Amino acid sequence: MENKILIKDALILNPRNDKEFEIKKSSLLIENDKIAKIDKNIDENSASKIINAKNKILMPGLVNTHTHLSMTLFRSLADDLNLDSWLNDHIWPIEAKLNKKYCYAGALLGAVEMIKSGTTTFSDMYFYMDGVAEAVDKAGLRSVLSYGMIDFGDSEKRKKEIKESENLYKNFHNTADNRIKVFLGPHSAYTCSKELLESVRKKANKYKTGIHIHMNETKKEIEDIKESTGMLPFEYLNDISFLNDDVVAAHGVWLSNNEIDLIKENNIKISHNPCSNMKLSSGIAPINNLIENNICVSLGTDGASSNNNLDMFEEMKFASLLQKVDTFNPKALSAEETIKIATLNGAKSLQLENEIGSIEVGKKADIILIDCDSANLTPNNNLISSNIVYSANGSNVDTTICNGKILMENKKLSFLDEKEIYLNANENIKKLKEN
Amino acid sequence: MENKILIKDALILNPRNDKEFEIKKSSLLIENDKIAKIDKNIDENSASKIINAKNKILMPGLVNTHTHLSMTLFRSLADDLNLDSWLNDHIWPIEAKLNKKYCYAGALLGAVEMIKSGTTTFSDMYFYMDGVAEAVDKAGLRSVLSYGMIDFGDSEKRKKEIKESENLYKNFHNTADNRIKVFLGPHSAYTCSKELLESVRKKANKYKTGIHIHMNETKKEIEDIKESTGMLPFEYLNDISFLNDDVVAAHGVWLSNNEIDLIKENNIKISHNPCSNMKLSSGIAPINNLIENNICVSLGTDGASSNNNLDMFEEMKFASLLQKVDTFNPKALSAEETIKIATLNGAKSLQLENEIGSIEVGKKADIILIDCDSANLTPNNNLISSNIVYSANGSNVDTTICNGKILMENKKLSFLDEKEIYLNANENIKKLKEN
Repeated sequence: MENKILIKDALILNPRNDKEFEIKKSSLLIENDKIAKIDKNIDENSASKIINAKNKILMPGLVNTHTHLSMTLFRSLADDLNLDSWLNDHIWPIEAKLNKKYCYAGALLGAVEMIKSGTTTFSDMYFYMDGVAEAVDKAGLRSVLSYGMIDFGDSEKRKKEIKESENLYKNFHNTADNRIKVFLGPHSAYTCSKELLESVRKKANKYKTGIHIHMNETKKEIEDIKESTGMLPFEYLNDISFLNDDVVAAHGVWLSNNEIDLIKENNIKISHNPCSNMKLSSGIAPINNLIENNICVSLGTDGASSNNNLDMFEEMKFASLLQKVDTFNPKALSAEETIKIATLNGAKSLQLENEIGSIEVGKKADIILIDCDSANLTPNNNLISSNIVYSANGSNVDTTICNGKILMENKKLSFLDEKEIYLNANENIKKLKEN
Repeated sequence: MENKILIKDALILNPRNDKEFEIKKSSLLIENDKIAKIDKNIDENSASKIINAKNKILMPGLVNTHTHLSMTLFRSLADDLNLDSWLNDHIWPIEAKLNKKYCYAGALLGAVEMIKSGTTTFSDMYFYMDGVAEAVDKAGLRSVLSYGMIDFGDSEKRKKEIKESENLYKNFHNTADNRIKVFLGPHSAYTCSKELLESVRKKANKYKTGIHIHMNETKKEIEDIKESTGMLPFEYLNDISFLNDDVVAAHGVWLSNNEIDLIKENNIKISHNPCSNMKLSSGIAPINNLIENNICVSLGTDGASSNNNLDMFEEMKFASLLQKVDTFNPKALSAEETIKIATLNGAKSLQLENEIGSIEVGKKADIILIDCDSANLTPNNNLISSNIVYSANGSNVDTTICNGKILMENKKLSFLDEKEIYLNANENIKKLKEN
């Protein structure tokens, strides 16, 4: 039987570019993986499943454009530390012992957390990405996967890293009912050689896919690049003809005016990760400035290990409030603008704007429902966007649908066994620490 | 029959002053309103009720030291505005139409939100406080109530305000099984005359109770006070002999070194409200500096209207991450320190340190349980404090107990009808807007 889900009487919030959001009471019909109809009157007989969405907000599933899902295993492993000590003494030693099995266990745990908090699409960069792809396939989410390449100038390592990335592309791009896309993931300008970055640019052009890279996260890395190249990071990437509109740069905390010009000219996408930048004391990204320059900013949680969760609702509140206090302007990053960066702009950054990011007929049915009958969303003073950004957290998500498939309904997972996944995660991190 | 609740096999987290937190697996017996015993082996037959707390964290109920509970009615009424426009065009016009009934409805809604997110004690300043007291009595929470006095130099108004405060004290101090205390609430140094502040100091000494006041929230108010008195706000209050260790000052965003010295010398308590300060673009309070000066800092959400929720877990994460990024020190306001300010320091600020704020035999049974069997708290990497501050939100609270009475168990309210309270809140704000 065809998959036909009727969501009845919802309060539909539809983020739009350069326009006020559309908010209306209506019903929505999903046919297979797509939104087939939005109308107040849809025949119930046409549906194989009916969801009553009275007093529920229906909005696009959130898009998390920068994370390391398998690192969910490292949640609260090490905190309140300098970045150096956190990486050198804790994260890197344990990462050296990872394998596909561990990465699958961490990714599946992260997938459960995302489903429960309303994220339907994420962009990941890590190792053992075949394990992550398996978790994505099983969990029913949408994702853009990148293998994190690092060569530190070693040409043997470089060849291996490129081969690993090409294998990931060949094996997984457009798999899992097209829910998985593969980008290229050079880790950063300070861990990848010029040769590796140039090779990545060629491969991205060849495969017509995107690039996911960490950029300008800490002051230190910028000083290091300036010392080695005489240029600031984006200037250096511009110099080697790396920059193009297919690049998603995570962080962008420290940016010179000239770099902002380069980002704008090349239509680079910036993934903003406020919780991670705050927790690691990296700094405050000039998001308001970027948006005023019409640069496409999206939102990411970074790994759970430096956040320490994957809740995009919380991330929205952090993003908005941080810009307001940093610019002394309470109008900065309004609730509507914040929802836009967490949905539409995410879709655009991941080259998925024709498929997801808004509620329109013909788009993929990546949809979440938020129950307004909750203490923290009462009363209903009509500022739907305010309630979503400033009052809600991920636990207000009631139903999560991705690619037309119900992953969670009434806060119950449809087919994943969460207790087993928690148990498995606990066992895996225990083994990893003992080894 | 005596109230004897046995909480079995919990992971007990006990915040302590100047020591590492105590974290141990044990059971706890409540007798009537108090913690009677903490021991691995407590006879089940001695209990009238048993709660199985396996894989649950048991910790003190959180203490919110600055809010305006009735303003929960104004959640998402007006956002993304300048403070002036927010107050003049939206909040003050609607506040002028308030009465006891509206304030009760808003306070009861806020009480439900607090119970659900693990806050058991709050300090409130507002109008129609008899309505708030009624809601506190009904909801079973603990609170310190202050009537917000404003005279703007008008001597008639001043008399009325003082009388209102004294009536509140006489009618409600030590009522509701001693769950309600009454402080004096001069709104601020810029809305209260010197005469009113001097009178408040006398009354506080007479009644031996505390003072709750807004201080140094925005740059503008400081400039105004400097212009009218020639002094900074805390210098002015020191000059008129207002300062003493019974004063809880909310905000403290803009503080000179001399004012920090005065705060320290007089043992003033500072209530930090990071979300509100960020959302209204007031600024970033120098909390790390205050703590290094051994000043007692506690945590508050401010009203839901400028936050826009009452979730103290979220507030803890904001507090910690904001200090880390502001000081470029990832060790600033560690997870343990943050829990301490949200529990023990709150108790101390409200003159309740002998009764609440930690898990000790003889203290009042103000206790919450957090279910660790949740996606966002898995895996259990043993950093309990990290998970509470960086990963959790209020929805992870499973059970809330105040004064030995179970207010919520397994996420279900024990005796309040939440649907009715939401309906009533929606109806009240609708009427208020129409009037």
